[in-house]
Amino acid sequence: MARPLEYGEQVLLWEPKRGRTFSFVLREGEIFHSHKGSIPHGEIAGRPEGAWVVSSTGTEFVAFRPRVGERMMKVRRRTQIVYPKDAGWLALALDLRPGMRVVEIGTGSGAFTILLAQLVGPEGRVYTFDRREDFLKNAMENIARAGLSERVEAGVLEAGEPFPVEGEVDAVFIDLPEPWLAVPPAYSVLAAGRPLAGIVPTAEQLKGFVAALEREGFVAVECVEMLERRMLVREREGVRPAERMVGFTGYLVAARKALGKEVG
Amino acid sequence: MARPLEYGEQVLLWEPKRGRTFSFVLREGEIFHSHKGSIPHGEIAGRPEGAWVVSSTGTEFVAFRPRVGERMMKVRRRTQIVYPKDAGWLALALDLRPGMRVVEIGTGSGAFTILLAQLVGPEGRVYTFDRREDFLKNAMENIARAGLSERVEAGVLEAGEPFPVEGEVDAVFIDLPEPWLAVPPAYSVLAAGRPLAGIVPTAEQLKGFVAALEREGFVAVECVEMLERRMLVREREGVRPAERMVGFTGYLVAARKALGKEVG
Amino acid sequence: MARPLEYGEQVLLWEPKRGRTFSFVLREGEIFHSHKGSIPHGEIAGRPEGAWVVSSTGTEFVAFRPRVGERMMKVRRRTQIVYPKDAGWLALALDLRPGMRVVEIGTGSGAFTILLAQLVGPEGRVYTFDRREDFLKNAMENIARAGLSERVEAGVLEAGEPFPVEGEVDAVFIDLPEPWLAVPPAYSVLAAGRPLAGIVPTAEQLKGFVAALEREGFVAVECVEMLERRMLVREREGVRPAERMVGFTGYLVAARKALGKEVG
Amino acid sequence: MARPLEYGEQVLLWEPKRGRTFSFVLREGEIFHSHKGSIPHGEIAGRPEGAWVVSSTGTEFVAFRPRVGERMMKVRRRTQIVYPKDAGWLALALDLRPGMRVVEIGTGSGAFTILLAQLVGPEGRVYTFDRREDFLKNAMENIARAGLSERVEAGVLEAGEPFPVEGEVDAVFIDLPEPWLAVPPAYSVLAAGRPLAGIVPTAEQLKGFVAALEREGFVAVECVEMLERRMLVREREGVRPAERMVGFTGYLVAARKALGKEVG
Repeated sequence: MARPLEYGEQVLLWEPKRGRTFSFVLREGEIFHSHKGSIPHGEIAGRPEGAWVVSSTGTEFVAFRPRVGERMMKVRRRTQIVYPKDAGWLALALDLRPGMRVVEIGTGSGAFTILLAQLVGPEGRVYTFDRREDFLKNAMENIARAGLSERVEAGVLEAGEPFPVEGEVDAVFIDLPEPWLAVPPAYSVLAAGRPLAGIVPTAEQLKGFVAALEREGFVAVECVEMLERRMLVREREGVRPAERMVGFTGYLVAARKALGKEVG
Repeated sequence: MARPLEYGEQVLLWEPKRGRTFSFVLREGEIFHSHKGSIPHGEIAGRPEGAWVVSSTGTEFVAFRPRVGERMMKVRRRTQIVYPKDAGWLALALDLRPGMRVVEIGTGSGAFTILLAQLVGPEGRVYTFDRREDFLKNAMENIARAGLSERVEAGVLEAGEPFPVEGEVDAVFIDLPEPWLAVPPAYSVLAAGRPLAGIVPTAEQLKGFVAALEREGFVAVECVEMLERRMLVREREGVRPAERMVGFTGYLVAARKALGKEVG
Repeated sequence: MARPLEYGEQVLLWEPKRGRTFSFVLREGEIFHSHKGSIPHGEIAGRPEGAWVVSSTGTEFVAFRPRVGERMMKVRRRTQIVYPKDAGWLALALDLRPGMRVVEIGTGSGAFTILLAQLVGPEGRVYTFDRREDFLKNAMENIARAGLSERVEAGVLEAGEPFPVEGEVDAVFIDLPEPWLAVPPAYSVLAAGRPLAGIVPTAEQLKGFVAALEREGFVAVECVEMLERRMLVREREGVRPAERMVGFTGYLVAARKALGKEVG
Repeated sequence: MARPLEYGEQVLLWEPKRGRTFSFVLREGEIFHSHKGSIPHGEIAGRPEGAWVVSSTGTEFVAFRPRVGERMMKVRRRTQIVYPKDAGWLALALDLRPGMRVVEIGTGSGAFTILLAQLVGPEGRVYTFDRREDFLKNAMENIARAGLSERVEAGVLEAGEPFPVEGEVDAVFIDLPEPWLAVPPAYSVLAAGRPLAGIVPTAEQLKGFVAALEREGFVAVECVEMLERRMLVREREGVRPAERMVGFTGYLVAARKALGKEVG
């Protein structure tokens, strides 16, 4: 039987009329307030996922556990985040799977760290680094809210410094303004043949990143951007794409570590 | 230390000049043939991932284990497959994680089954169904090639029949020409609050799918399409999008099971 | 020598800091007001296009004649308009050129009528029809503001009624909620072989429109949508697509009138 | 009454089954050959536009005059051409209209020249320049095939040289690998306030072009790219975007000539 929603875990309230969502951690004695009325947390805790709850002003919501993409979107943001539309592509590019050990440089607000931690599972490990201690603190709070702290080790690190990780890792993710700085230490820490990926916002950074990858022994470099387009599907008005869309978030890069040609 | 490439596992050869890839299972005594010359499997087995190998005509390749997206693209196709660009979005929509139990209806060639099986891990379980026994047979061979057979149970099932699965599952994926037929049995088998997702090729199917979801108690329905655009990044020629792209593969749908309003 | 800006014609003020534009007709004695200060029209009239003018608060603007796309965007809107990104495609689909006679059904706010009138020139003629007299009145005011009234004849007409036009026309444009109703009268009025085009917002309308075209003797039917993506080009921040974009405005349709097979 | 198809003019045959088109100039005594059979030109000349013609093997075609976009696509190509999807946007950006005088630098194969010539009409004038005499020769043949030679003057010119044109022109179009070289002469020849536009394939060229425009006194610089997506609309199979699309052709740039701040 499915576990009911419990105090201490993050919930997502979904409001049917406009599809808006609200996310918070259930705390005994606290009350959720919105312009659609208030709901005591105690009326949510103990209910099953998918249950309807009604606010003080009569608005109905459905209570869910957030999915991983929703946890990413609902982090407290101190930085730009990796968006779910890009994160899915990156998850495949990094060949994520349970038990993997992954390095991330450029923790930011920890949104992508949450996806990494969910997919490597309780037996995997995410080592995440940022030069800003305040970003790391915020990110780790976001990761804690998602219940994933035990799989994540965070540390302060300047771009270009070697990764303080024991042995080889299975994948490296780079989200830095100067991604090229992290390419040599990424090569050092990555198991032979395994993938690296990253995200950059401009054409210039993309060029510098790719040049560094090719120089340092990475091959099979791929660069893409993902466009997500929402469709409106309504019985009377008909089917059509939504009028507004996100035009751009970043260029995505993936590559694999090749050994030197003399090696083997 | 990373495990060397072994007989019995799938490898991917990457050719630097044009970025082409070739995939096959390493077999003792066999020889890989291409228009770029031949390579005995024995010269690949025992080498580390990321090693360079040279063909009879002097062409250099790098030998890798395929990543999950490459395994998907390299399945023997008897049907349209779910493409990696869509699969990443679906993985997040289904909130995939280690240990999950997932139902898939419309196995097709098993490409998306491979992603499901990789992400639920050895402790998870994928139950996949198709009405065509010949498709299932081909799909299970593709899944075996990816080394994931033990996590996957396949069965013949007509769209609309109840899923022969014990207890509740954590996610349902629908890839059928008439997806609405599978919505009621999906509702029955899915744990409260948990996600369903699917893919359909036309606006008409999208409309019918969404109508069925809303009728049967699903909420938070999202419909999108993903456009993947490759970027060319070259030192001399400069940075620009690629001239050709895949224009469309399918509309993606996600939703969550809400309980009845009286329930709770 | 270029003609200076004159009273009675429409001008466009462009503000460098944020790229905002303001459009109005120059009137003796009037004053342009904005949150960036005010400018008497008399300080603009008599200046050449491209001149800098300074507001009461010291903000600098450049004064232009609006280009046709800007005239379209600046119409007083009583309806959705045809956007410039779509209008360019439609202009080619309709094979517009000086001297043509064109029928438009669904005048709306007259935005596309302005483009038609500009491209058919003083020797061409645009016959535009709408079922709503109030829309026509507003549209004709917009067209007058663009200085193009003499090329445009407007009339009230229900979709499906024959076009009250003498002889054959060179192109027909349909912008109606039920475009199929206008297809038979369009066939009647159009010269043999010449193009018809239209715009519709939903997949259902697109299907009905195309079915009517094929039924009524149109061939070479093409359906597209246009996505316009703005690029940000900045010396320091670098080159990248803009974060937001218009996701959809409408599906564009073009076709040509074929004669009956026995004819010739 | 519409003029029948005549010897000496370009026709377009459209084939219904696959939507393929064939274009050639009607010549007395010549025969059109394709894998769908042959048709003597004499069976086309004298027929009205939109008439059905039947090949020696019984395939039916419809005979049209090509529209301007089709004339562009059917030029004999010695270079990349400006595609119709981009040409429509550029036509609006350049504020084209009958009677205008336009300079084009980078004639290439003359595809965009054909659009310019059609839209400025018999009283307008297109001055087009290329450094390659052989390109100009081919382009002028393409323009002749479209029946537009009398409106076009072509000349050999190196990028950066002043345009040998009397007086001011109403618009300038730049299609060069080093577009920045043509910006100062474009500023000189362009009437105050009037538009310049161009197309470039890479992010680096885009950056250099924009920098030159801003340096030389152009304002209101806009950069976009256009994506054209074909829709498939079929009664039985349903409505959906086409599987393949052109991913990129070029970045489009538009700007307007501002006067110096002291001028006025």
